[in-house]
Amino acid sequence: MSYAYDAIVVGGGVNGGAIAYNLSKRGKKVLLLEKDVVVSKSSSAAAGMLGAQAELEEDGPLFQLARKSRAMFGSLEREIRTLCGIDIELINKGMYKVAQTIQEEMTFKNIIDMQNRVGEEAEWLSGNEVRVKESSLSDAVIGAMYIPKDGHVSAPQLAMGFIKSAAALGAVIKEYVDVYSLKIINGKIQGVQTNEGDFYSDSVIVAGGAWSKKLLDQAEVHLDMYPVKGECFSVTTHRPLLTSTIFSHGCYLVPKKGGRLIVGATVKPYTFNQAVTIDGISSLMEKAKNLVPSIINAQWEKAWAGIRPQTGDGFPYLGEHPEVKGLFIATGHFRNGILLAPITGEMIADLVERKICDENQQYFSINRSIKMPI
Amino acid sequence: MSYAYDAIVVGGGVNGGAIAYNLSKRGKKVLLLEKDVVVSKSSSAAAGMLGAQAELEEDGPLFQLARKSRAMFGSLEREIRTLCGIDIELINKGMYKVAQTIQEEMTFKNIIDMQNRVGEEAEWLSGNEVRVKESSLSDAVIGAMYIPKDGHVSAPQLAMGFIKSAAALGAVIKEYVDVYSLKIINGKIQGVQTNEGDFYSDSVIVAGGAWSKKLLDQAEVHLDMYPVKGECFSVTTHRPLLTSTIFSHGCYLVPKKGGRLIVGATVKPYTFNQAVTIDGISSLMEKAKNLVPSIINAQWEKAWAGIRPQTGDGFPYLGEHPEVKGLFIATGHFRNGILLAPITGEMIADLVERKICDENQQYFSINRSIKMPI
Amino acid sequence: MSYAYDAIVVGGGVNGGAIAYNLSKRGKKVLLLEKDVVVSKSSSAAAGMLGAQAELEEDGPLFQLARKSRAMFGSLEREIRTLCGIDIELINKGMYKVAQTIQEEMTFKNIIDMQNRVGEEAEWLSGNEVRVKESSLSDAVIGAMYIPKDGHVSAPQLAMGFIKSAAALGAVIKEYVDVYSLKIINGKIQGVQTNEGDFYSDSVIVAGGAWSKKLLDQAEVHLDMYPVKGECFSVTTHRPLLTSTIFSHGCYLVPKKGGRLIVGATVKPYTFNQAVTIDGISSLMEKAKNLVPSIINAQWEKAWAGIRPQTGDGFPYLGEHPEVKGLFIATGHFRNGILLAPITGEMIADLVERKICDENQQYFSINRSIKMPI
Amino acid sequence: MSYAYDAIVVGGGVNGGAIAYNLSKRGKKVLLLEKDVVVSKSSSAAAGMLGAQAELEEDGPLFQLARKSRAMFGSLEREIRTLCGIDIELINKGMYKVAQTIQEEMTFKNIIDMQNRVGEEAEWLSGNEVRVKESSLSDAVIGAMYIPKDGHVSAPQLAMGFIKSAAALGAVIKEYVDVYSLKIINGKIQGVQTNEGDFYSDSVIVAGGAWSKKLLDQAEVHLDMYPVKGECFSVTTHRPLLTSTIFSHGCYLVPKKGGRLIVGATVKPYTFNQAVTIDGISSLMEKAKNLVPSIINAQWEKAWAGIRPQTGDGFPYLGEHPEVKGLFIATGHFRNGILLAPITGEMIADLVERKICDENQQYFSINRSIKMPI
Repeated sequence: MSYAYDAIVVGGGVNGGAIAYNLSKRGKKVLLLEKDVVVSKSSSAAAGMLGAQAELEEDGPLFQLARKSRAMFGSLEREIRTLCGIDIELINKGMYKVAQTIQEEMTFKNIIDMQNRVGEEAEWLSGNEVRVKESSLSDAVIGAMYIPKDGHVSAPQLAMGFIKSAAALGAVIKEYVDVYSLKIINGKIQGVQTNEGDFYSDSVIVAGGAWSKKLLDQAEVHLDMYPVKGECFSVTTHRPLLTSTIFSHGCYLVPKKGGRLIVGATVKPYTFNQAVTIDGISSLMEKAKNLVPSIINAQWEKAWAGIRPQTGDGFPYLGEHPEVKGLFIATGHFRNGILLAPITGEMIADLVERKICDENQQYFSINRSIKMPI
Repeated sequence: MSYAYDAIVVGGGVNGGAIAYNLSKRGKKVLLLEKDVVVSKSSSAAAGMLGAQAELEEDGPLFQLARKSRAMFGSLEREIRTLCGIDIELINKGMYKVAQTIQEEMTFKNIIDMQNRVGEEAEWLSGNEVRVKESSLSDAVIGAMYIPKDGHVSAPQLAMGFIKSAAALGAVIKEYVDVYSLKIINGKIQGVQTNEGDFYSDSVIVAGGAWSKKLLDQAEVHLDMYPVKGECFSVTTHRPLLTSTIFSHGCYLVPKKGGRLIVGATVKPYTFNQAVTIDGISSLMEKAKNLVPSIINAQWEKAWAGIRPQTGDGFPYLGEHPEVKGLFIATGHFRNGILLAPITGEMIADLVERKICDENQQYFSINRSIKMPI
Repeated sequence: MSYAYDAIVVGGGVNGGAIAYNLSKRGKKVLLLEKDVVVSKSSSAAAGMLGAQAELEEDGPLFQLARKSRAMFGSLEREIRTLCGIDIELINKGMYKVAQTIQEEMTFKNIIDMQNRVGEEAEWLSGNEVRVKESSLSDAVIGAMYIPKDGHVSAPQLAMGFIKSAAALGAVIKEYVDVYSLKIINGKIQGVQTNEGDFYSDSVIVAGGAWSKKLLDQAEVHLDMYPVKGECFSVTTHRPLLTSTIFSHGCYLVPKKGGRLIVGATVKPYTFNQAVTIDGISSLMEKAKNLVPSIINAQWEKAWAGIRPQTGDGFPYLGEHPEVKGLFIATGHFRNGILLAPITGEMIADLVERKICDENQQYFSINRSIKMPI
Repeated sequence: MSYAYDAIVVGGGVNGGAIAYNLSKRGKKVLLLEKDVVVSKSSSAAAGMLGAQAELEEDGPLFQLARKSRAMFGSLEREIRTLCGIDIELINKGMYKVAQTIQEEMTFKNIIDMQNRVGEEAEWLSGNEVRVKESSLSDAVIGAMYIPKDGHVSAPQLAMGFIKSAAALGAVIKEYVDVYSLKIINGKIQGVQTNEGDFYSDSVIVAGGAWSKKLLDQAEVHLDMYPVKGECFSVTTHRPLLTSTIFSHGCYLVPKKGGRLIVGATVKPYTFNQAVTIDGISSLMEKAKNLVPSIINAQWEKAWAGIRPQTGDGFPYLGEHPEVKGLFIATGHFRNGILLAPITGEMIADLVERKICDENQQYFSINRSIKMPI
């Protein structure tokens, strides 16, 4: 039996792109299918923080995965630029996880201790010490956990960079192709049925973000996953308001190239509705003004929203379907889809190639929580 | 058994809107579900021609349906404006179906005879007579069938007008809601399963244009229908280049308000890909320049594409599923989705209410060609 | 001496358009010059309120002018639709000037008395009476002056409608034409010098909004006028939040077709900078939320700003230059540019034709406050 | 007498930005004034070719200047990225100046000889040799002059990079500031009068592209310069159609990052009108299809136009006003504004600092052709 493609990736976002890219690098003939246009959903909406230490407050498999993925961006930047000319806009100027209460200060100091113990740099700075570095910050900031290695990238450029690099290496990219169903025979994946016909492969990877659930439900794989809307807005100034990312409870501010600043993000679970609400913008503005009062004079650029896939235990699903050979799943990254894309791409490529995979992969396996059909 | 809604309409385009509007007018509690945002697909891409006589060259059920629908726009315009303030931009300045060859002249004269016989106005004008009316036309036009009653509307305004009017009458509009499957028990529709939960009704109408097929396939209704891409572009001038619509083989030019002119449309079957190609624009430009040479000085506005649902016999599907009670289908309108929306809305509302319906409905019934699952 | 044009209008906004339209209707050969594209500055930014009674709290020449202009919109709507197909979206559902303090209540009641005395309808409604009509209003509204005749239009459609109607009547519209200087010989206007050559006429009308000052300064006409930025934003809902315009201190909400709602406007004097600030959006949002709490769930659309020309005494300049024959000026309309456009067009056309003009014109004359060169 | 700024730059495009950047690097306190928003005119419209050898066919001062400027991009890329994070997207993959006639082949071979003599690399490749490198090229290409060092940048990113880097170094950027006139007393510049007040400096640099003429005319400096419109369009493909720039008579194709391809540019003299015409797009499409037939399947992105300043002798104006001390002029770059920006910035900074300037500066001096007022 011959297959048209070595692998079919379903989903044209950052993780689908990362997987297609890694498989293409390894010489596989890859087909990437996207139901809309590539990089049009949460991968284009993300602020691109690489908050391995800021987002993940406990040691464990996810923290390890995040550290490992974060370390991959340097070489990735060069590869993508060489292959397709895209600059992923990697910035390594650190992050301040700011405290506004004594309670937060205590918590963050504990996190610093933990992280130092496992070999990650992090230190506590007083409010004044932080303001020496970031003079726009208000007195509401009583101190901060400074994380030198948590940088950021342009999320849409990274996602597009993966996909265009995969294309440069031979991957076929098809947009507006909606996968109707997975072709499964005798416990093996055979390919996919789509609005533009059937495509065949003995390896199919579902990496459709929050939209993965629909397709997997049809295949009787019921992941414990739900969509969470996040709203953001951006402003510009001629001179940057900040040099490093400011991360706080309920609001982060990420300084992009050319004086652009992204403020995010709300957390609204159980909806796929991408509309930006007045409530969302208004609450983000209040938080941002509290941290950086001079933002009131910045120039409004635009607002947008993305739908991120959250899971019941907060871990992404990265693995092969326990009962359908050749069906791989990579979704549920929630707020860490950008950060985890490099390791996701590599890990899934290892699984597809039946290579020895990252030892932590077991913690992200599908059957850790799979709900089989009743 | 209680139902949450009197009817659920799946599809937020012009026909879904028309159905929701008609049902709401009749006091029904309606839920309209759209997987993206309303009026974002072919209903926003259409040029809005009401070419009952220009498009349909033979007498028969479709021609009768088109005539009847065309006659409904006058009162519809007033209703929609009153209910939601939207102007559907109805223009009744006629259409010239222009001939460029002797063969076309003969064909059009025969069509005129046929149409006159059934009581529709249409007359032949020589090339010079046409140019007296439309001085921008070139000598390539050797004559034209003039159709005084074939006007046009703004397709996006009409679609939005239906939907906002339905909302004003109490319909609930939900965007970004993807219908995963139809709930059918014992040959009766019960509701729909979606990404935002289940909704219940004993009347469900699928009006998803070219995208209907996917959902119906899942319900084992295999329509003989396929997608056809149409690309368009628009230009502007301070003084209009044309006063009436020019309809020719392979190209039409529709003069919109304020000196805007829409040029359409290519016909590219079997694809859902909405990308506009250089080939598409280039071929339309050549045809338009041939008909209206002075268009070369007009100002470029933009290009776009829409995906229209064509059927095997060229007739839309308008009716109830033969084996699933309460499941109604309204799709397959191809290039006549705007023109047929008023009658579609009324006819489906009649069917839902179990009222006596238009006598021609039988010709558009689902089981005329339904391919049952093998 | 022969002139190429009967009149040259400098400025492609709503007032330049109204003047060009009126002169064209009277058979004049008109040239309209716009330095950018037409309807790109404050005419496209305005919310389109026709607040003759809401904005103007005292009787006097400006109030009389505003009443007269407001009465002209009905016939204007029909004329523009006929000439160029554009719907100016005239809505006559009244306005509520809402009070939030006892002080405001007393003031508004006095204004009602005054307006009733001069024959204008206006009445006081208690907070509860207002909420019966507009159920979205909060308890912060203790009452309102209800003005049945203060409606609104689409400002960009009105401006575009004037210009395209003028074009339909023969006016020549030139965009990207920057008037470098006025040609004045022996106290008579001769024409204009521009980046695309010289154009001649013995009647030149400067109607460039806030930008008029620059050109007039060059001609040694120093108007007492300054720019005032106004920021706005808009939201949408499927069902309208309001049926009538809500006008309050520092914030108005204007319901547009299809469930769109414009919230405006900040007042930031002495700047031409059209950037929208966080401060501007944030303060408008707080005011809007206070009046209509449910706006928090509305969908964000966009934000924008316009630059309006304010004058020292608050009156527009509408008249002929006292020392340069044939040089007419129409600017300084501040927040009433849309409302006053019909009467401005008519009045300036009368002056150009040397006809008897509105008796109030004297109060808006140029030399009432002209500062001659030192 | 004290001055507020060391230098005032009028014009927020690529050359104004380059000058502001160079002066800021040298520690000057710089004010940059832009009448609209920065990078909104031809600097954002340019395709960004660095065609020192492709555009300039004869040795001489302009060729020398272009070579020198081209060599500056490597270090500039790093500086700008460091200062403001912007990637100017410098690509050094060479350019093919393709011949379609024997006459062109002979001409290009002569140019190659000339360029080799002055030490520049260039070589003749046969049609087949070119197609080995660029397989999308059609048989219409009979050969090409290959220029390894003529690369390209992103024009808008370069312009924005200069301006944001200048801001990072302390320059003040003011948008929407229209310079009404130059303040000149006793043959010395004193500053500028603007719509937002007066600003003072004893060094004022006019770098307003095609719009410079207006301001300089007011100061009685009548440059022999005129505007030339250039229209472009862009397409995208997942895999690039070309790797290097293709330059031909009347059409060039510049491959940008991520599979984007810019096709330009028409040459329409004596207009400031930025409207894109059907004629413009249509003619570019025909030329592009002739060179790269497979472009017909590429995806349309958008079309735009820019206004470039051409001069009577084809040389830019780069120098100090011969009679007004401290008034510097940098304009007239026509199609080489991007290429010449680095050397323009350096040269003008040298002049402002009264340093020894590039020996070729004399050939670009203002009084080489200045037309004094009659």
